[in-house]
Amino acid sequence: MTSSRTVLIVSDHTGLTAETTARALLAHFPDQPLRYVQRSFVSTLALAREVTREVAALAERGERPLIFTTITEAAVLRELEAAPARLFDLLGPGLTALEEEFGVNAARSVGRYHDMHDQTSYLARMDALDFALATDDGVGDKQYGLSDVILVGVSRAGKTPTSLFLALQHGVRASNYPLAEDDFERESLPRPLEAHRAKLHGLTIDPRRLHAIRTQRKAGSRYASLEQCEHEVRRAERLFSRVGIPVRDTTSASVEEIAAGILAQVRRG
Amino acid sequence: MTSSRTVLIVSDHTGLTAETTARALLAHFPDQPLRYVQRSFVSTLALAREVTREVAALAERGERPLIFTTITEAAVLRELEAAPARLFDLLGPGLTALEEEFGVNAARSVGRYHDMHDQTSYLARMDALDFALATDDGVGDKQYGLSDVILVGVSRAGKTPTSLFLALQHGVRASNYPLAEDDFERESLPRPLEAHRAKLHGLTIDPRRLHAIRTQRKAGSRYASLEQCEHEVRRAERLFSRVGIPVRDTTSASVEEIAAGILAQVRRG
Repeated sequence: MTSSRTVLIVSDHTGLTAETTARALLAHFPDQPLRYVQRSFVSTLALAREVTREVAALAERGERPLIFTTITEAAVLRELEAAPARLFDLLGPGLTALEEEFGVNAARSVGRYHDMHDQTSYLARMDALDFALATDDGVGDKQYGLSDVILVGVSRAGKTPTSLFLALQHGVRASNYPLAEDDFERESLPRPLEAHRAKLHGLTIDPRRLHAIRTQRKAGSRYASLEQCEHEVRRAERLFSRVGIPVRDTTSASVEEIAAGILAQVRRG
Repeated sequence: MTSSRTVLIVSDHTGLTAETTARALLAHFPDQPLRYVQRSFVSTLALAREVTREVAALAERGERPLIFTTITEAAVLRELEAAPARLFDLLGPGLTALEEEFGVNAARSVGRYHDMHDQTSYLARMDALDFALATDDGVGDKQYGLSDVILVGVSRAGKTPTSLFLALQHGVRASNYPLAEDDFERESLPRPLEAHRAKLHGLTIDPRRLHAIRTQRKAGSRYASLEQCEHEVRRAERLFSRVGIPVRDTTSASVEEIAAGILAQVRRG
């Protein structure tokens, strides 16, 4: 086995931007054995020197580490550049191009993004999160009226993680409607949803996957049985298609994908 | 007032990487009036043409839009490059450098990151989310034993958003311990936390901010009164310092910052 290369993700703040970009790049090299190390809040030269000492120690053992950084402070960046590693300056070239484009200098201050500099949108995200938590699984008409999006699906089809992600990442107010036996008997849109048709997004899932998820929760129950899962999913899908709600399959989609798909649909209107 | 420039965030998948990087760059130009437009799942030439038509329409009105893209498919990228806009190819240069570094070609396939390609870490995140939801506000010793991190603080100090973010973003299992009156009377570590001292992270908040948050919930209640908030915060801070738990002030910190700070501390050990 090849020994793995160290990927140092170095930022002067939370490190979320650096990690996202580094992983997006490295995902294109799925066969490289890599070891990720996160070094956040590296905002001073002294802290950068701790990182370069760490890199030097790796280099002495014959490794050539990769450094991915969003640091923009010139002195700190220079310290990293001098380390025996391959450095990826993730923001530098873009900032230079934007300075040229806008005809002004970049602020180049520490961690401007992922702080609360945009108070309004941050508070909207926290409000949406409270909303999702308060309305999780079954709410009244008032909450549906206040929702941006209403997720409809059987128990454990992915409604809750999706609504929390929509809130935390996108500031979108999502509520849930859990489909149950009496909804299937009705064979039309559940009454509480009738006035909100444009906000509805159905979630479905492979019955075997649902069976596995529910078994983790309540092994051996009727609720978790494959027969029951097959029955519920079949009836839910029939309902979605009868009333014409857009549907997403969550079986092998991440919450990031489900949420982005719903938002793309909302934008198309 | 200057008219705002359009920033098109164009990706072949969820758009999260493109949006994160674009916003991290543009946060360094706080005075530029910008209008953000997200175009996700642009995975074909036909869909790219819809975007370039949109750009052309803006250009006809005398605007020079900015396109930020993580698209790596050559034909689709070329279509965007031909549009009358300033293009920021966010992954291209990094991929070329990595190809050189690794001596292999990049996969350059659609949306490798933010899908479920890393099943193990995705499932860990979903498990951590279930854990955070199941154990929100008050749990038994078993759950504390299974936690990576235990957040301690008075009601509405930021424990729940932080634990959900730690789960969804980082796959870290966080549980909460809400401090209440009887804990303050005890003047030492609450009994359920005694065995888990190394996992404890205190959250505090400005009493006026806490008062505002609680007032939104229960206006006019004793719970929301400034006196009560001041009393609880003072006692909580005294407890943290007496037992020596690391403390974070959530008053003007985002969940991204609080979570990253906790993780940096966990790593330092």
